Amino acid sequence: MRLLPAFAVALLSASAGVTAAPLTLKEQGSFFVGGETKAVTPPAAGILPAQTGEITVNQMYVQYQVPLRGERHLPVVMVHGCCLSGKTWETTPDGRPGWSEYFLRKDRPVYLAEQVSRGRSGFDPTVFSDVRAGRLPPGELPAVISATHQLGWTVFRFGPKYGEAFADQQFPMQAIDELYKQMIPDLNALLPANANPTWTQLAALAVKLHGAVLMGHSESGFFPEQAALVDPQGIRGMISIEQPCVTDLPAAKIATLARIPTLMMFGDHLNDVPSGGPVNWQQAYDGCKVFVEQLKAAGGDAQMMHLPALGIRGNSHMFMQDRNSDRLADLVIAWIDRHVEHKHP
Amino acid sequence: MRLLPAFAVALLSASAGVTAAPLTLKEQGSFFVGGETKAVTPPAAGILPAQTGEITVNQMYVQYQVPLRGERHLPVVMVHGCCLSGKTWETTPDGRPGWSEYFLRKDRPVYLAEQVSRGRSGFDPTVFSDVRAGRLPPGELPAVISATHQLGWTVFRFGPKYGEAFADQQFPMQAIDELYKQMIPDLNALLPANANPTWTQLAALAVKLHGAVLMGHSESGFFPEQAALVDPQGIRGMISIEQPCVTDLPAAKIATLARIPTLMMFGDHLNDVPSGGPVNWQQAYDGCKVFVEQLKAAGGDAQMMHLPALGIRGNSHMFMQDRNSDRLADLVIAWIDRHVEHKHP
Repeated sequence: MRLLPAFAVALLSASAGVTAAPLTLKEQGSFFVGGETKAVTPPAAGILPAQTGEITVNQMYVQYQVPLRGERHLPVVMVHGCCLSGKTWETTPDGRPGWSEYFLRKDRPVYLAEQVSRGRSGFDPTVFSDVRAGRLPPGELPAVISATHQLGWTVFRFGPKYGEAFADQQFPMQAIDELYKQMIPDLNALLPANANPTWTQLAALAVKLHGAVLMGHSESGFFPEQAALVDPQGIRGMISIEQPCVTDLPAAKIATLARIPTLMMFGDHLNDVPSGGPVNWQQAYDGCKVFVEQLKAAGGDAQMMHLPALGIRGNSHMFMQDRNSDRLADLVIAWIDRHVEHKHP
Repeated sequence: MRLLPAFAVALLSASAGVTAAPLTLKEQGSFFVGGETKAVTPPAAGILPAQTGEITVNQMYVQYQVPLRGERHLPVVMVHGCCLSGKTWETTPDGRPGWSEYFLRKDRPVYLAEQVSRGRSGFDPTVFSDVRAGRLPPGELPAVISATHQLGWTVFRFGPKYGEAFADQQFPMQAIDELYKQMIPDLNALLPANANPTWTQLAALAVKLHGAVLMGHSESGFFPEQAALVDPQGIRGMISIEQPCVTDLPAAKIATLARIPTLMMFGDHLNDVPSGGPVNWQQAYDGCKVFVEQLKAAGGDAQMMHLPALGIRGNSHMFMQDRNSDRLADLVIAWIDRHVEHKHP
C-alpha cells in the first residue's frame, strides 16, 4: 500500500511548483455565503462555561483567487464530494498543481466552495451536545459518513479489489496515502436531504458573482442542478462529474434547467468494480444519460461526455487528481468556452 | 447587532482587493503533515454500507503560498485558535486582506496550518458512530466546544457586556456577523490534552521546511512552545498571541525553549471584560510574563509585547482582524527581522 513514504510525496509536492512559472493574482481571499442565527438552550457545556445564546449555522465558506486576466472569463465555482473538502481541487496527492491552479493559469477566476457542515464551513453541533447531556437519545446522532481506505478503493474505482489497481489506472497510486488524508468525516446527515443549504448558498454565490459556472463532483455532482432549481439566475453553466442524476423531475423543472448549458462527465471502468458499494457507476451513468436526453428534448444544450468514448482510458473517480488531470481540465475549459462563453476557436 | 447586512460586507470584500496591486506567487498549494492509520471495527454504518477497514486520523492540513521573493525570508506558519480555522488569517470580516496576504506582500512564505480535528484536517469520527450504535454510552462523546456569539463577545474582548463595544474598539464591529460565521465547532476534546497531535505535526512541518517561525493564537498560542518541546530543530522563532502560558516547566524544558527567540503579544482591555469566562486575560498576561522571565533567566531572547504599553489602544483578541491589523503585522515582521533573521535596519 505505502509505495512512497509520505515524506517523499511531500518532497515531490515541494518540487512540483518550483519549476512552474510564477502565478500573478489580481485578488484573492475568502468569505462566507449565507448563515443563520440559531438559539442554543439549554447550554452546550464543554471546557467552556455553560452557555446560552446564539450560534451561526448553515454558512458556506468560499475561498477564491482571481488571476490577472480573470475578467476575460466567467468565474468557476468548484464543489467537492463526499468525505472530502476544498482540498480536492488543490495540489494533487502526487504533488502536481490541481484544477484550481490549472484553471487560474487559464485565466479563470476560481471559487472553492466548502459544503455546509464540512471543513471550514463548520457544522451545527447542537445534537452532539444534546445527546451527550442525555437530552436526546443516541439514535438522534447523525450517521457520520466516514469512508475507509477499502471503501474509497472501490467507490473511487482504483481497481477490481482492494490493493489491486487497474493496469491502466490514471490515479497516482503511489501517492494514495495522501488521498486518504483528504478523506474526512461527512456530516451531511445533519442537513435536510431535500433542502441542503449548500444548494441555496451556491445559488446565492452565483448571483453575488454576477454569473458563474458551477462544477460539482460525486456527492455534489448534481448540486449545480439543485442550486439552479433554487435560483437559476446566476448560473451560466453546470458541470457535473460522476454522480447519480435525478431522472424524474417534472417538466417545469426540466425547462428551467434546460436554459443552462450542461456537461456531464464520466470516466472509465464504470462496470469493473464491485457493485455492492453505495454507488453503482454504470447505473449512475445510465441515469444521467436519461437526464441529458430530457434536457435536450426540452431544447437544452446538454452533453454527456464519457471519457473512454473519446479514447481516454483508465480514469478513476478523481478526475482532478488523476495523472491526466490537466488534459481533462482542458476538456472542461474547452466546453465552457464553446457552450457557455460562446467562443469558437 | 447586524449593523451591516451580509451583502454589503460581501461587496466590501469584493472591492477591497480590486484596488490592491497584483500579487505574484512563486508557488502555492496544500499538503498534509502526519496522519496514522486506524482500524475501524465494528463497522461505522451510515448511508454507506457497513464498513470494516482503516481510516486515516491525526493528519494536519497545511495550505501555503510562497511569494516571488520568498527565498529572502523564513516561512511563517500560522495556527488558528479555538472554534476557528485557517480562515482566521485570510480576508478580515470587513473585507480587508488578512495577515496571510499581508505577510506574503512582505515577501514571507506563509503556511496556514489547520489544527488536527478541525476544518480540512478532519477528525476521528469513531466515537460518534460507537455512541450512535449503542457500543459506548453518550457520556463518551467529546464535549464539543461551540462558542456562542455572547461568549465570543466576552472572550474576544469586544466590550464590557454583550452588545456594547468599547469606545476605542479596534475590531470592525460592523462586520461582526462575518466573524460569527468563522466560529465553528471545536473537537479538540477528541485529542489527548497532554499530547495534542497538532504539536507533533507543527514540529514536523518546521523540519520539513528546513526552518520556520511558528505563530499561534489563543488556544494555539502556546503551540509553538509545545511543538518545540516535541522537536525544536526546525523552529527558528516562536510568536504567541494572547494565550495562557505554562509556568511550571522543568529547567531542562525551559533551557530547550530559551534557545529559540520568543515573542508574546497581548492587546488592550485585559481587565475590562467579565472574568467569569474560560480565560482571565489579566491572569494569562501575568503568567506569560513569568514564562518570559524564565526564558530570559535561562539566557533566552524573549519579549513580552503589551500593545497599550506601546501606545496602541483598543485591540481585541483578534489582532489579525482588528482595523489596525496591518500595523500589528508590521510589529511581528519587525520582530522576526531583528530577533530571528538578525537583520537590523
